[in-house]
Amino acid sequence: MSVIYPRVALIGLGLIASSMFWAMKRGGLADHVMGYARSEDTRETARRIGLGDEVVDTLVDAVRDADLVVLATPVGVMGRIAEEIAPHLKPGATVIDVGSVKRTVIEEVGPHIPAGVQFVPCHPMAGTEHSGPEAGFASLFDNRWCLVVPVEDADPEAVARVEAYWQAMGANTEVMEPEHHDLVCAVVSHVPHLIAYTMVGVADDLRRVSDQEVIKFSAAGFRDFTRIAASDPTMWRDVFLTNKEATIEILGRFTEELMALQRAIRTGDGEQLHAYFTHTRAIRRGILQAGQDTNEPDFGRAKVKR
Amino acid sequence: MSVIYPRVALIGLGLIASSMFWAMKRGGLADHVMGYARSEDTRETARRIGLGDEVVDTLVDAVRDADLVVLATPVGVMGRIAEEIAPHLKPGATVIDVGSVKRTVIEEVGPHIPAGVQFVPCHPMAGTEHSGPEAGFASLFDNRWCLVVPVEDADPEAVARVEAYWQAMGANTEVMEPEHHDLVCAVVSHVPHLIAYTMVGVADDLRRVSDQEVIKFSAAGFRDFTRIAASDPTMWRDVFLTNKEATIEILGRFTEELMALQRAIRTGDGEQLHAYFTHTRAIRRGILQAGQDTNEPDFGRAKVKR
Repeated sequence: MSVIYPRVALIGLGLIASSMFWAMKRGGLADHVMGYARSEDTRETARRIGLGDEVVDTLVDAVRDADLVVLATPVGVMGRIAEEIAPHLKPGATVIDVGSVKRTVIEEVGPHIPAGVQFVPCHPMAGTEHSGPEAGFASLFDNRWCLVVPVEDADPEAVARVEAYWQAMGANTEVMEPEHHDLVCAVVSHVPHLIAYTMVGVADDLRRVSDQEVIKFSAAGFRDFTRIAASDPTMWRDVFLTNKEATIEILGRFTEELMALQRAIRTGDGEQLHAYFTHTRAIRRGILQAGQDTNEPDFGRAKVKR
Repeated sequence: MSVIYPRVALIGLGLIASSMFWAMKRGGLADHVMGYARSEDTRETARRIGLGDEVVDTLVDAVRDADLVVLATPVGVMGRIAEEIAPHLKPGATVIDVGSVKRTVIEEVGPHIPAGVQFVPCHPMAGTEHSGPEAGFASLFDNRWCLVVPVEDADPEAVARVEAYWQAMGANTEVMEPEHHDLVCAVVSHVPHLIAYTMVGVADDLRRVSDQEVIKFSAAGFRDFTRIAASDPTMWRDVFLTNKEATIEILGRFTEELMALQRAIRTGDGEQLHAYFTHTRAIRRGILQAGQDTNEPDFGRAKVKR
């Protein structure tokens, strides 16, 4: 591997940025990585665990001289950060973000990017339910997709270099339009997260079933929902607020289908239920064939001793 | 370990029954296990893989002389099976079922059980998304809960023996009332399954997002839903039809909360969303503390190479 961007600035030091740091180290992809986080606690933790070649106390110190600036904060604050760093960006630098929504980020970050600086929005589709500077690990992006969503009139060379950078960190890349990105992500990620949060909230709220019972008997299904519902609250709040349109569209479809199934249950229409449940099996087979999950029979089980 | 029921009959040879067989073999819990399945294909597979000391072609041959009869079919057919086997049950025998709902099973199976035979409804809360005779493995019940739901006027000795049997197969046991069982399971298992099925159905149905995209970019969250939605359609159809009341009650709560969150998204109420998402983290911590899941950061990832 070789250096792709000599000097990199990571803005925000959570799960994604810390994983990027370790992936860059693994691949020798940068000479010097600057880290910045708004919280002093986070900066101290980063210094303690060696996250970043240098951890600085201001945004401006982080981005000065950087060949690549990575916005890795919740998407709700990216516009403000872009505005603040804009005057200090090196001519010829590239700015990327790693937000889960793209149209809003392009609208809010794009206008601040000065001429001579390239902005290439990205969305690495990888994560765990853990957050913070200690959550990262070098292999997070291995064999995962990073969607690259170029702005209008993007420099093809800058886009290609960003793709090469993600590939060097282990990811596959695909270029997508912003609106389509936001719709795809509403389906495969955003709405599933929202309904998992909701189901866990319902369980917690139910007076006739104790918390202890919910925890103790938490079965396959619900246990996975609790894992999803342990994801970072600020990140997800911003996702829903900034991908409002697609989220509400898909939620509408979801509610419609759920009502149809509820009606089938109420009226005892076993045929409809069976047909629906059979149909959904096919998608699972496709995902396994695409190598994006494992078929091991350990679903929801803590300890498989074969 | 020692023999708990000398002669055991497994009726239905799917994931649960086959796991019970391997767990009985592991623990030396039975001298002779008879297997029966309605489908000839399943019986042939069972014979080929050595599932059951003997696989027989009729229900009556399976249960004759059995000290323990295990109903391990979808719950919708258990009543009919109980009716058919009743005249052939050995005096002093015990009948258990392993269905995911209990009130309906008690109503439909209970009346057929002759005097001198004990009926002890059970629900082992363990499973994978795989089904069929080849899906089972000896450790499926290890450290999982088996809920035991005695009928009215149950013989305490018969109940204790059933508990000892599950414990010998690796499970923890807890005794519960039927109505409470069905409500708890609606919350921690049945409704989560229904909404996972629904979400996968919505994704599959959406014209503007291709199947290929859903499969390719299937992220944490959705990927887990597809795993849930690959579960056995007949089993789940019967669960919803026979636990109608609790399912519809919990679905109502779920829809209510989802609508509240949708409204918060539409109106841009970030505070409400953040508060909700923070709250749900606590349940996850409880589940981890209860040892019912792992905290490894491999959530939704196929291959973690650290």
